[in-house]
Amino acid sequence: MKIDLNCDLGEAFGNYSFGGDNDIIPLITSANVACGFHAGDWNVMHETVKLAKESNIGIGAHPGLPDLQGFGRRNMDISPDEIYNIVTYQLGALNSFCQIHDVRINHVKPHGALYQMGARDKDIAHAIAQAVYDFDPELIYVGLSNTLLISEAEKVGLTAASEVFADRRYEEDGQLVSRKEPDAVLTDKDEAINQVLKMVKDQQVVTKTGKVIDLKADTICVHGDGANALEFVRNIRETLNKEGVSITQLGG
Amino acid sequence: MKIDLNCDLGEAFGNYSFGGDNDIIPLITSANVACGFHAGDWNVMHETVKLAKESNIGIGAHPGLPDLQGFGRRNMDISPDEIYNIVTYQLGALNSFCQIHDVRINHVKPHGALYQMGARDKDIAHAIAQAVYDFDPELIYVGLSNTLLISEAEKVGLTAASEVFADRRYEEDGQLVSRKEPDAVLTDKDEAINQVLKMVKDQQVVTKTGKVIDLKADTICVHGDGANALEFVRNIRETLNKEGVSITQLGG
Amino acid sequence: MKIDLNCDLGEAFGNYSFGGDNDIIPLITSANVACGFHAGDWNVMHETVKLAKESNIGIGAHPGLPDLQGFGRRNMDISPDEIYNIVTYQLGALNSFCQIHDVRINHVKPHGALYQMGARDKDIAHAIAQAVYDFDPELIYVGLSNTLLISEAEKVGLTAASEVFADRRYEEDGQLVSRKEPDAVLTDKDEAINQVLKMVKDQQVVTKTGKVIDLKADTICVHGDGANALEFVRNIRETLNKEGVSITQLGG
Amino acid sequence: MKIDLNCDLGEAFGNYSFGGDNDIIPLITSANVACGFHAGDWNVMHETVKLAKESNIGIGAHPGLPDLQGFGRRNMDISPDEIYNIVTYQLGALNSFCQIHDVRINHVKPHGALYQMGARDKDIAHAIAQAVYDFDPELIYVGLSNTLLISEAEKVGLTAASEVFADRRYEEDGQLVSRKEPDAVLTDKDEAINQVLKMVKDQQVVTKTGKVIDLKADTICVHGDGANALEFVRNIRETLNKEGVSITQLGG
Repeated sequence: MKIDLNCDLGEAFGNYSFGGDNDIIPLITSANVACGFHAGDWNVMHETVKLAKESNIGIGAHPGLPDLQGFGRRNMDISPDEIYNIVTYQLGALNSFCQIHDVRINHVKPHGALYQMGARDKDIAHAIAQAVYDFDPELIYVGLSNTLLISEAEKVGLTAASEVFADRRYEEDGQLVSRKEPDAVLTDKDEAINQVLKMVKDQQVVTKTGKVIDLKADTICVHGDGANALEFVRNIRETLNKEGVSITQLGG
Repeated sequence: MKIDLNCDLGEAFGNYSFGGDNDIIPLITSANVACGFHAGDWNVMHETVKLAKESNIGIGAHPGLPDLQGFGRRNMDISPDEIYNIVTYQLGALNSFCQIHDVRINHVKPHGALYQMGARDKDIAHAIAQAVYDFDPELIYVGLSNTLLISEAEKVGLTAASEVFADRRYEEDGQLVSRKEPDAVLTDKDEAINQVLKMVKDQQVVTKTGKVIDLKADTICVHGDGANALEFVRNIRETLNKEGVSITQLGG
Repeated sequence: MKIDLNCDLGEAFGNYSFGGDNDIIPLITSANVACGFHAGDWNVMHETVKLAKESNIGIGAHPGLPDLQGFGRRNMDISPDEIYNIVTYQLGALNSFCQIHDVRINHVKPHGALYQMGARDKDIAHAIAQAVYDFDPELIYVGLSNTLLISEAEKVGLTAASEVFADRRYEEDGQLVSRKEPDAVLTDKDEAINQVLKMVKDQQVVTKTGKVIDLKADTICVHGDGANALEFVRNIRETLNKEGVSITQLGG
Repeated sequence: MKIDLNCDLGEAFGNYSFGGDNDIIPLITSANVACGFHAGDWNVMHETVKLAKESNIGIGAHPGLPDLQGFGRRNMDISPDEIYNIVTYQLGALNSFCQIHDVRINHVKPHGALYQMGARDKDIAHAIAQAVYDFDPELIYVGLSNTLLISEAEKVGLTAASEVFADRRYEEDGQLVSRKEPDAVLTDKDEAINQVLKMVKDQQVVTKTGKVIDLKADTICVHGDGANALEFVRNIRETLNKEGVSITQLGG
């Protein structure tokens, strides 16, 4: 049994720092690198690719909506054709920094509202996946388990990796409970660890209604910022290790 | 004898149209495509690359300073390290659209203030050239004839193409007379045509002081917007044809 | 009987021109001036306020969503609290240019997606109206006739002016038929002129289903760009004049 | 004897926090509030004005160059006419938030590169000052002591307040030693405190060459971010108190 741990990196911008990239890197196997639309800039991208390469973790493109002020978290009414171009632009920009560091992009994971929109809208899910495929059909596509992100990616011919969340509660249809609802996040760390174990070992999760649903778990999304974030990731790693689950980079 | 004719394309943005790309394309051999910093956006880039490919003209990256409101024409005090990253980012972004259309970038020409800064500042010229080389050492580098743009490009190992201007007056050191001066532009079209002929055939130009200086002419910069722009380009083509000069794409 | 004619002005940006402000000005009584978010910039705003003042037409603020690339026409999932701040910021920015030209803002009209969102969402309509009222309760608020834009504006204590469209088709509930539908725009100019007359004289419009609904008409939205736009506005003016309708600035 | 203590506030943007506004506020008498160009956004401005009002400190506009990624610290080759518009736009935007909170802007201090450019270039200094005067001639104008910022402000008719820096070294002409030089900042806190005292009590400073020059000191620039920043400001306050210098808001 094996699982990947992914984390968003390179989210600083200009004079603004963000997150603790150096601290989380030793604990993860894949980095989702912001590409300058919702976060990150050309300098940050250069440094982040360099750091990820030195740390030997997988580099992923993390394209987002063109909305720095909203951190790419606000839905925007953008056509699938434009979504395709938005993803294409960002993939190339990040790839350029990989090229000068002689390393490859390993995976792609849409960010924030783009991820949420794709999980619910077939045309958008298709547009993102097609852009990734047209750019490089060998890239691994990371999307929310059980959703259109995964099925549309597979339909265009990509290898998809199903993502699960340690501390987010699930709807019966496999979507995440919206952050606007009070019980969206699991605040009890033991409960979260148990959710991780169940997802990784049984490929199942208990939804907010108590129902048990199937889901695929190829990679777990973790965070480097926030109080106790690092401690929590360390707990996940220890528990997985104890249970004999290998923490392995996507595609490895 | 041969010469390339290059023109800036893809400078529209969002709801704003710009220039007459379709009209100038049949008259030129190389297109400098804006990369989203000083002009252009992801949709415009997609369309422009497609159009240039269909028209069989050479596609060039036209990276600029991050200043849409100033159209990349205002000098900014940016470090060479950051210039390197700015160029890297834009090369990748444009290349991505080339990749999905199965075509290659043929040349790179810095835009506006970036071009002017590089023509006068060795560290900036070096940073631009190094970014181009690290991205792809096979790219042809277009810069102002007789300046640091050319010498620094050749120093890093790139093939440089010397650019000349049909309707701009020259200083004795080979720089263009600044647009802030009254006699910067040749308004007499016959004078401009003669300047072109002298540059292409004799590899010389008469400066604003009347002195004749040597310069190399691999490509002529023309424009598609402005009154009589197309007529002027047609005149250049006819004159060159009559004189037996072949109008040929860079590297062709 | 009287009616105002309003038109969006000052939508140029940086190097990009837009519309023919000078041509339409003699034909209208109120200008909606872009405030730098969806269009316009500090230089354009300065010139547009100066021009509107000299032309003796009413100056209106035309705040939009922060989306230059989308021209403020794409819905964004922004909270009412943030909408309030977005409107407040833009009102102040435009007012500053009015202050240095010793003229006042006469009205406010939300732009594009902000207008559409406010016409359909009560919380957003309230947020816009409250921002306008808190900035200056004397401002006239222009919104789509029969919608939440008008009712929420009146609820907070503003004087609202009901806007109608000469060449757009109406739904039975008073909303405009979406531009995504084929019959959204009246292409027959006579039909459009008749629609104007019916709206102004009878305060009624025939919807796309053929039903006649009531609507209030204080101001008609016209355009300065597009083929035959000026001709069409001249036709509207002539027809209204013939029918004895006075074309008068809002609040006049 | 009295002196004002000013600090830059409201420099967060979107998802990015910045500085510790709440911690520094009790220690200062004037806040320079970012206006959305180099830092700050509409939400941050709303909160910062509210906070400054509640804390009873003077609110200042802190206009900057349109360069968020460079934090307004990079010189840009912008014409004086455009500088005038840039300042006008930002003054209005901030004033709008003051208006809804029923409080006034007390002073204006240009930010970063705009401040540095104005201190060295007469036309730019004049453009900034004229924009402030045209917006509101009662505003207090804060600029670097002994420079064109002060003299041009007084020439247009503004009341100028001379700013001094506790921990920056001075050139013989009164300019700050550039941050690009190794000895730009006083790292010894006792030396900095002594510099403050000498500036406030004797209206003199010892330059980097050892020469003593005269300078006027109406307000001291302090910082809320960085290690020991708050401790240092507390030291300044205590020392000034002991010496009988009253710490008083500009214009108070």
